[in-house]
Amino acid sequence: MSAARFDVLGLGNAIVDVIALADDDLLARENLQKGGMMLVDESRSGQLYAAMGPATIISGGSAANTIVGAASFGARTAFIGKVRSDDAGKAFTHDIRSIGVHFDTAPAQDGPATARCLVLVTPDGERTMSTYLGACQNLGPEDVDPETVRSSALVYLEGYLWDPPAAKQAFLKAADIAHAAGRQVALTLSDSFCVDRYRGEFLDLIRNKTVDIVFANQHELKSLYETSDLDTAFSALRQEAVLGVVTCSEKGSVVVTRESTKAVPAFPIEALVDTTGAGDLFAAGFLAGLARNADHATCARLGALAAAEVIQHVGARPMRNLAALAAENGLGV
Amino acid sequence: MSAARFDVLGLGNAIVDVIALADDDLLARENLQKGGMMLVDESRSGQLYAAMGPATIISGGSAANTIVGAASFGARTAFIGKVRSDDAGKAFTHDIRSIGVHFDTAPAQDGPATARCLVLVTPDGERTMSTYLGACQNLGPEDVDPETVRSSALVYLEGYLWDPPAAKQAFLKAADIAHAAGRQVALTLSDSFCVDRYRGEFLDLIRNKTVDIVFANQHELKSLYETSDLDTAFSALRQEAVLGVVTCSEKGSVVVTRESTKAVPAFPIEALVDTTGAGDLFAAGFLAGLARNADHATCARLGALAAAEVIQHVGARPMRNLAALAAENGLGV
Repeated sequence: MSAARFDVLGLGNAIVDVIALADDDLLARENLQKGGMMLVDESRSGQLYAAMGPATIISGGSAANTIVGAASFGARTAFIGKVRSDDAGKAFTHDIRSIGVHFDTAPAQDGPATARCLVLVTPDGERTMSTYLGACQNLGPEDVDPETVRSSALVYLEGYLWDPPAAKQAFLKAADIAHAAGRQVALTLSDSFCVDRYRGEFLDLIRNKTVDIVFANQHELKSLYETSDLDTAFSALRQEAVLGVVTCSEKGSVVVTRESTKAVPAFPIEALVDTTGAGDLFAAGFLAGLARNADHATCARLGALAAAEVIQHVGARPMRNLAALAAENGLGV
Repeated sequence: MSAARFDVLGLGNAIVDVIALADDDLLARENLQKGGMMLVDESRSGQLYAAMGPATIISGGSAANTIVGAASFGARTAFIGKVRSDDAGKAFTHDIRSIGVHFDTAPAQDGPATARCLVLVTPDGERTMSTYLGACQNLGPEDVDPETVRSSALVYLEGYLWDPPAAKQAFLKAADIAHAAGRQVALTLSDSFCVDRYRGEFLDLIRNKTVDIVFANQHELKSLYETSDLDTAFSALRQEAVLGVVTCSEKGSVVVTRESTKAVPAFPIEALVDTTGAGDLFAAGFLAGLARNADHATCARLGALAAAEVIQHVGARPMRNLAALAAENGLGV
């Protein structure tokens, strides 16, 4: 196994977030399920945008947020995802490259626009997302550069890739190449509705050893094992031959292997503003910790620190240099 | 004089802000003067964008920010400004309309792109702006609808309108129509560099009674009267036959007429994040106060409240409902 050029390569939907503050009435009027991510077509996306208040536009995408967070911690990172060569695609590309992430997936020259996720943030800080996948529907195995995968110590894949038609093939190709090169593969279950759509396939990925590490929150974990009891879900996870990393909101996180279970507290925050990206940034910190060979508890603390930063402002990308924030909190390299 | 349909009509450059956190080194490398607003061409704007970190995109424009703020306080508002029918122009239009501002200036169908202002926010909260005026260069007197002006109790004009070639004619047309209809006209001096470019013309506007109300910060006021002494500048302002409203950052504001001078304190803040829009939102609160016939001290307190809100987050548009915030602070209607 050669030395890795990248600590983490992410593969995910390349999305620009359009974020507006909203009240519960708007969710009700638009029939949106609070806390969820629903897929919408272009026309519905336009109609919902017209109903939204003034918006802030910030690059997003679950795995992309994670990779940007890991880069902010100082990890060497790369990303694969599909935009179109429109204004939003150019903004996504600028933002991810400007923080040092290697990103050279060829943008689509025509076809659907760059994906946009309409994020409604309610006064309780909860976010409700409506995603138009747009150009992400053109992501396919041809976008997975084998050399980039082989030269990445860890490949991080999002469950949301099961939504667009050909991205699943890109996911599996990346996992195969990574394992052939002796690398590790991580999966995030993305959200509980996504787990509900693809439960069987996600369990297969875990059980046929396509993935080595699984990130989930408590709702996704319960959905995966179709139980309302968290302990039952943890017991089931403990039987899998993976490293499981489960976030439980303000209760912190739990790192699970066959041999051990370790609970790690969250970081205190001053004011919850917008939970968008909490899970993504937790994964960023955890992966940044793995990249520097930290123990799992330290990895989870780095994750908690990044999640605490991102939920205290609007948007799912960090607004602080996370390496500096880690150093301030005694978690520096 | 007929009853007004709008409390405030704003006329200004329609701009989308592209905001990134930056360190002082970037300003030095790019030869940018901290705290200033400089005009750049499209090519320089692109080069600077490439040098910037990850960015947040939020509608901006000085007078537009003010009008949106006044709308958030519950004032009936309208805006005139020129975008192009591109993605940024559509976002600008969505954002200003979605908060209830009447905005129907015809967008340019071709020519330069919608204006963008690259805003670099340093750790001290100061913002440094580089503006590509783009489609604003196409704003002209034909965009000023006489009926909208006549039906607005107050017309608010930004000094920045002296920058694009034909906007000055739009400014003067609006002021003439407003006065013929018995309405009031307000001018913001915009920034000290702008005052430096057009000092003689701005003094003429004040002295030939084109404007009735002047908004400025202390730097702009000193620049207007070419003095480094604030008291000297205030004495000069007191000689003009206008209502002068001068903001002095954390020291609060001063409302000046020939007859009286009243100092009004600022609102305390928890943490300064981004000063972009502080002056714009101060004017928003003041105008919203005038719209409800509040005394000048109350108007200035409303301004201070709105300014305090906007400097505690990224972006120059309010993220709270300002009417609700006013009520919480004993300044409700």
